[in-house]
Amino acid sequence: MSKEETRSALIDTGRAMMFETGFNHTGIQAVLAAARVPKGSFYYYFDSKEDFGLAVVEDFVASHKAMRERFFKDESLSPLTRLRRYFEHYAALFESKGFQGGCLLGNLGQELSDQNDAFRVRLEEAFEGWRAGTAECLRLAKAAGEIEERWDVQTLADFCLSGWQGAILRMKVSKSRAPLDAFIVTLFDGLLARR
Amino acid sequence: MSKEETRSALIDTGRAMMFETGFNHTGIQAVLAAARVPKGSFYYYFDSKEDFGLAVVEDFVASHKAMRERFFKDESLSPLTRLRRYFEHYAALFESKGFQGGCLLGNLGQELSDQNDAFRVRLEEAFEGWRAGTAECLRLAKAAGEIEERWDVQTLADFCLSGWQGAILRMKVSKSRAPLDAFIVTLFDGLLARR
Repeated sequence: MSKEETRSALIDTGRAMMFETGFNHTGIQAVLAAARVPKGSFYYYFDSKEDFGLAVVEDFVASHKAMRERFFKDESLSPLTRLRRYFEHYAALFESKGFQGGCLLGNLGQELSDQNDAFRVRLEEAFEGWRAGTAECLRLAKAAGEIEERWDVQTLADFCLSGWQGAILRMKVSKSRAPLDAFIVTLFDGLLARR
Repeated sequence: MSKEETRSALIDTGRAMMFETGFNHTGIQAVLAAARVPKGSFYYYFDSKEDFGLAVVEDFVASHKAMRERFFKDESLSPLTRLRRYFEHYAALFESKGFQGGCLLGNLGQELSDQNDAFRVRLEEAFEGWRAGTAECLRLAKAAGEIEERWDVQTLADFCLSGWQGAILRMKVSKSRAPLDAFIVTLFDGLLARR
């Protein structure tokens, strides 16, 4: 493997383990063994376990952002439809995974926000990126007359982010898509529906 | 200390530690030391660490339920005002704690739902209790004409639960009450407001 491939394999393995057991329980030795990377080389790629965990977050945020933008910038759909399709896509994805894992950022936010400020700040930045992208999509929906003028799109995007994170948490606990569906239906057919 | 007092001291200490570091990282020896209970006596009170953790959850759910009902059954207020005061009470409480800790049920749901089915089922039951209590309060609000006839109060209560849990998570990550306020304002002044 090239150096880039090795680093990438470590990150992929780390992400899978962090999804399963969180950051604190993810052991570097176990990551190296599972990725079949020689023990001595970890510190060639990362300064510390924290540095490694932050690199996993960075990678996750970048790939999630790319997926989000595939939906939010899809000009073949109306802005509000883009947003709905985005949530429906993830609901189907979570279902295909048996409602395990959830959202890595939500999981780490829950686990680490009171313990590690470097993670906390990075996760807040990632949430802020999600919120800004969603607010922009809602702004377009307002400009297109899909949602009412009275909405403050920043506050609304914030509300969507909380509602979606909470729905993912409750999906994990109930092992069902009911909370995801309740979120989507109430948001689009109740809250945002023009009357 | 009487047996009842000792058990209660262990639960209080366990709850504080589980708030701080989660269930997996809470060590029985540390709980016993902090509660000043002799090492040998743990298994007199609890069958296992899991049994202990579930007793902490039980105790938390009972005291949270009592607090919730103090608000939800306060007949001096309209049903919708009861609900709003409940959220505002907790927002102020979280602020007084520096936005640390969050909700024990949300934390454990995030940590344990994929790892331990006994916890998962108990937490789902607790969420279901919250949802039912909120749905009843919303039903009263509908009967009183405070919210529109079109709402399905069960789905709406589900949406509230997700939104609130997500807002608590984001409060922990942002260390600010902005997500709590965005939830409260959007729910009461946007979603539920009669027009």
